[in-house]
Amino acid sequence: MSDLADLADFRRRLAALPGPDAQAAAAARARDATLTKPPGALGRLEEVAAWFCGWRGDPRARVGRPQIVVFAADHGVAARGVSAFPAEVTAQMVANFRAGGAAINQIAGVLGARLDIVALDVGRPTADFTEAPAMDDAAFLAALNAGWRAVDAQTDLLIPGEMGIGNTTAAATLAAALFGGAPEAWVGRGTGVDDAGLAAKTATVAAGLARHGAALADPLEALRRVGGRELAAMAGAVAAARTRRIPVILDGFIATAAAAALEKAQAGALDHCLAGHVSAEHAHRRLLDALGKAPLLDLGMRLGEGSGAATAALVVKAALACHAGMATFAEAGVSDG
Amino acid sequence: MSDLADLADFRRRLAALPGPDAQAAAAARARDATLTKPPGALGRLEEVAAWFCGWRGDPRARVGRPQIVVFAADHGVAARGVSAFPAEVTAQMVANFRAGGAAINQIAGVLGARLDIVALDVGRPTADFTEAPAMDDAAFLAALNAGWRAVDAQTDLLIPGEMGIGNTTAAATLAAALFGGAPEAWVGRGTGVDDAGLAAKTATVAAGLARHGAALADPLEALRRVGGRELAAMAGAVAAARTRRIPVILDGFIATAAAAALEKAQAGALDHCLAGHVSAEHAHRRLLDALGKAPLLDLGMRLGEGSGAATAALVVKAALACHAGMATFAEAGVSDG
Repeated sequence: MSDLADLADFRRRLAALPGPDAQAAAAARARDATLTKPPGALGRLEEVAAWFCGWRGDPRARVGRPQIVVFAADHGVAARGVSAFPAEVTAQMVANFRAGGAAINQIAGVLGARLDIVALDVGRPTADFTEAPAMDDAAFLAALNAGWRAVDAQTDLLIPGEMGIGNTTAAATLAAALFGGAPEAWVGRGTGVDDAGLAAKTATVAAGLARHGAALADPLEALRRVGGRELAAMAGAVAAARTRRIPVILDGFIATAAAAALEKAQAGALDHCLAGHVSAEHAHRRLLDALGKAPLLDLGMRLGEGSGAATAALVVKAALACHAGMATFAEAGVSDG
Repeated sequence: MSDLADLADFRRRLAALPGPDAQAAAAARARDATLTKPPGALGRLEEVAAWFCGWRGDPRARVGRPQIVVFAADHGVAARGVSAFPAEVTAQMVANFRAGGAAINQIAGVLGARLDIVALDVGRPTADFTEAPAMDDAAFLAALNAGWRAVDAQTDLLIPGEMGIGNTTAAATLAAALFGGAPEAWVGRGTGVDDAGLAAKTATVAAGLARHGAALADPLEALRRVGGRELAAMAGAVAAARTRRIPVILDGFIATAAAAALEKAQAGALDHCLAGHVSAEHAHRRLLDALGKAPLLDLGMRLGEGSGAATAALVVKAALACHAGMATFAEAGVSDG
């Protein structure tokens, strides 16, 4: 799959995204009705299995090769006092991911997932979006392509995650640009800012919206102007997965905001995405509601790194194991009521 | 650990259950505060880790040897038209469990759990509890002991599950006996009964309550009179796990009703139990509320077999993997804000 040549090329590819294999999804639902359980008794696991089988084009698919990619980047707005942690934590956490010491490393181990870390010019923040676009066209394209290229063609389930001090502020500004509403509606405590930090976040979101104004009406332009490299890369990865019919599990507020830019640019662009969880960052629920996505888990997580989505992937893996591995009533000689 | 000699022996052991290791739980919470994440960012995974470490007496415990035990039994009340499936399905499903074809087999595989199937006189139903106690004292003791003995001493996480056509009716009657309320409040569609089946269930619950009257005031006597062998066995297993400080994940309505008899007999008897999920069987939420337990998952599952609890165990395993495996801020050289 060739790299994105330019933004026009990305827009063309978004307009030509493939859909699921309706026949495989129907065959999966038909298989489900024959399995040794009362109809519907596995609840959402049954829906998840049919959705996954449809995208994989296989009525008896399993989760065999999940891939987690954590994209990391720094933000100009981090200098505005919007985070409880100093900006150098982005680079320190990249080292921690690479050494195997973060939460996502442990969850990846339980899931049996490949874990890739993609550091996007960490240490060189994007521009402060209250003063200028976060990225110029070339930087935005490079970030989209970093995500686009990161998806392993052999993967059957993608989990895009992120790390970037200041990025809940970027995500809140992007969400406000995409869906409207007051800055306060999209701002939360992120990693745990105090009241002063929360006020700084709200002011930064408002200043970003005011600075870029009508230019934010274009969702991809909003992603370039008020997003960040890791947000753009997640959008690129979600689109690349769709192009290959690889299902995606969305993580928290930041990952969902990045993906939402695709949905606003092209309705239906997130049909291959499942909301893995709803975060403790309150605006995440608002964002999921706006996208019409019901989260699989609600565990009060708010870490990022793909951690909520990777936890949800355990449930998805169990759902597909049941679907693919269970005996039918006929095979098991069980009376089907 | 010796078998239960008689019911008086069981009552004595319930009165002498061990508590968690408060020092290990406190050390686990102290460790959590040093891990490379914002405080609280793993949400319920952090609570679960501290709870588990306390019961295991190890501030850095992992889920290493989970055990699922599915207890199966037949019910006299199944002849009263209370199920969408014929009574022979209990035996057929036992064969399916043993052949590896049921949902719980697949989830056990994903979890890496030992799975034991304990068939309790399947094919020989308990007495119809609208006419007589479901079990006499000897049968009740045998069922308790079957559960008591089923717990592997080397297990570090127990998931008791069940299979028994008619057992939502037994569980509803038991729950009504333990917590009061009208039969309608505790009766649901189980495996999927129609309106006539639902009416038959409600009438059966009411008849059971009327038949046994004041004798149901004793929770263990209620378990004997209107429960079933698999419900008694689950209660025995939950108590045996507690005696060994093995944490337990409760499955759905039937498993929770069985365990609730212990809590009503001895307050605090379920402190080592986590509610794995809330079932689509509506009375399960009522039962969890009565026990003060917040479910980890809410996926609309209603299969039994331990399937909801085993799915939740994947999240518990991830929680402990994070807790035990993550680097501290000091180890990773990350600034802690």
